[in-house]
Amino acid sequence: MKKAETNQSTSTLSSPVNQVSFRVRYAETDAMGIVHHSRYLPWMELGRTELLRQIGFSYRQMEAGGFFFPLIEASCRYHAPAHYDDLVTVETAIDQLRPPYIDFRYRIYREPDHLLLVTGATKHVCINQDGALRREPLRKIQLALEASSKDNGDFPS
Amino acid sequence: MKKAETNQSTSTLSSPVNQVSFRVRYAETDAMGIVHHSRYLPWMELGRTELLRQIGFSYRQMEAGGFFFPLIEASCRYHAPAHYDDLVTVETAIDQLRPPYIDFRYRIYREPDHLLLVTGATKHVCINQDGALRREPLRKIQLALEASSKDNGDFPS
Amino acid sequence: MKKAETNQSTSTLSSPVNQVSFRVRYAETDAMGIVHHSRYLPWMELGRTELLRQIGFSYRQMEAGGFFFPLIEASCRYHAPAHYDDLVTVETAIDQLRPPYIDFRYRIYREPDHLLLVTGATKHVCINQDGALRREPLRKIQLALEASSKDNGDFPS
Amino acid sequence: MKKAETNQSTSTLSSPVNQVSFRVRYAETDAMGIVHHSRYLPWMELGRTELLRQIGFSYRQMEAGGFFFPLIEASCRYHAPAHYDDLVTVETAIDQLRPPYIDFRYRIYREPDHLLLVTGATKHVCINQDGALRREPLRKIQLALEASSKDNGDFPS
Repeated sequence: MKKAETNQSTSTLSSPVNQVSFRVRYAETDAMGIVHHSRYLPWMELGRTELLRQIGFSYRQMEAGGFFFPLIEASCRYHAPAHYDDLVTVETAIDQLRPPYIDFRYRIYREPDHLLLVTGATKHVCINQDGALRREPLRKIQLALEASSKDNGDFPS
Repeated sequence: MKKAETNQSTSTLSSPVNQVSFRVRYAETDAMGIVHHSRYLPWMELGRTELLRQIGFSYRQMEAGGFFFPLIEASCRYHAPAHYDDLVTVETAIDQLRPPYIDFRYRIYREPDHLLLVTGATKHVCINQDGALRREPLRKIQLALEASSKDNGDFPS
Repeated sequence: MKKAETNQSTSTLSSPVNQVSFRVRYAETDAMGIVHHSRYLPWMELGRTELLRQIGFSYRQMEAGGFFFPLIEASCRYHAPAHYDDLVTVETAIDQLRPPYIDFRYRIYREPDHLLLVTGATKHVCINQDGALRREPLRKIQLALEASSKDNGDFPS
Repeated sequence: MKKAETNQSTSTLSSPVNQVSFRVRYAETDAMGIVHHSRYLPWMELGRTELLRQIGFSYRQMEAGGFFFPLIEASCRYHAPAHYDDLVTVETAIDQLRPPYIDFRYRIYREPDHLLLVTGATKHVCINQDGALRREPLRKIQLALEASSKDNGDFPS
């Protein structure tokens, strides 16, 4: 859980930050009247898709090419609840990239008051269709990140 | 929607009825405090899996063998809401079997008072991995149904 | 199911059409590699929210005011599958409005080739917190629809 | 994430272990052909419900009485993927109980080969309808746990 709060990566990687916004769907709420806690994980997944697109990668094409990034760890800290029809923003950054591993971290907040809802982190491993570890796709992401580092956002560490 | 209420199949097929019971999960509720209407479709899917198992088929093995049964139609009629931790039963029957098509119908009710919650129907087509229509898997289901017809339940038509 | 295809409403109501677009989330796919059939219902719900917003209503405020619109019927016809990261558009229109009932219909298609994915229909009833039928909120929607009728879209009937 | 692996609770609490088994639903899989990582959280929720029932509590009745247990933290470690129709068991134990906080930990494995799929932990806070912290419901759970401690299972710490 610490990872979402303090970034102790020894890597010199500086990641761009993707921001994607959308409205909470009714189907994402539960009987407590708030967004169900499991529903933030698909939002983080959406953030990863958009972050990769931002630096020139398509996760869809990676899968078509036979590479997958299953999760090996996930953690969420719930700060405040979201409600139906809230406009929310998911901020996604790459926290660490040590092929074949890649770690993302997230901050999810409500618009327009910027209320922090959830912070989280996920750790993934790159494999091929046979389940074998693969480093090459992540090295390509690394190169793309270095190329985009001048545009680096200010995701608070 | 008519199909769930009146069975006008010209086929002489009589289908066994599968009954499977489970408790409503919190994650299946929404902010109205009731089970979200979309959640009954996965319950019907669970009913299909169990009905096929009951007559000696494994949907999992069919998929492993390269056959799929995507939906082409679905309908639900919502009679009463279900709530968290309710014990519910899904009754599933085959309504019509005209290879490559197979239709199921469902009655979902609450235990122990047998309150009717939802009735529904789904229509599927059997295809292989290339998307081509396939009749053989359904003919096997037909034979299995005929073999099991003596054990036929009393799903109201 | 007919309702989604042919609009035989005797009402003279002409409804605006809302269009809302978004990308398919990975969490919405299933092991067939396509969007799970149950996932279109939350998309239709999203379409309803946006259609009501378009004509000046907030479903969120209606619920805060003690009015709810639970489903009493839903139907989907699946024409073609959607895949992860597809850009999809949900078109939503009000099909019929006979307080306390309101019917919506939907066409969901893929961008940019306009491939039709799913057509559907839902029927709702307006109730208050005690479950009593309520006509007033729907009469307000009716007035708003009449006011917006000059901007009416061309949802094919 | 450490918490799921090593139990460093200073409390002398020894918790019973609940085991609940069910089959993976098709709707819980994703395009990778495995259970979507977000789907384990509802399974853990199901485990909590059953553990509380086992020691004589009904989470449903607690909510009816105006007490809620929203999550403040959740973490999952994914060891091996689950597939459609797998029979899985969720083991749930109370890790720590410091009113108004309660922590659960989980081990999810596949039957019958006992393959470990996921370990996890969740931290909750007890609040009333106004969002105020509440200790009493957790003290009652504490008493019930002490009463049931002779039946304590062997959840590995």
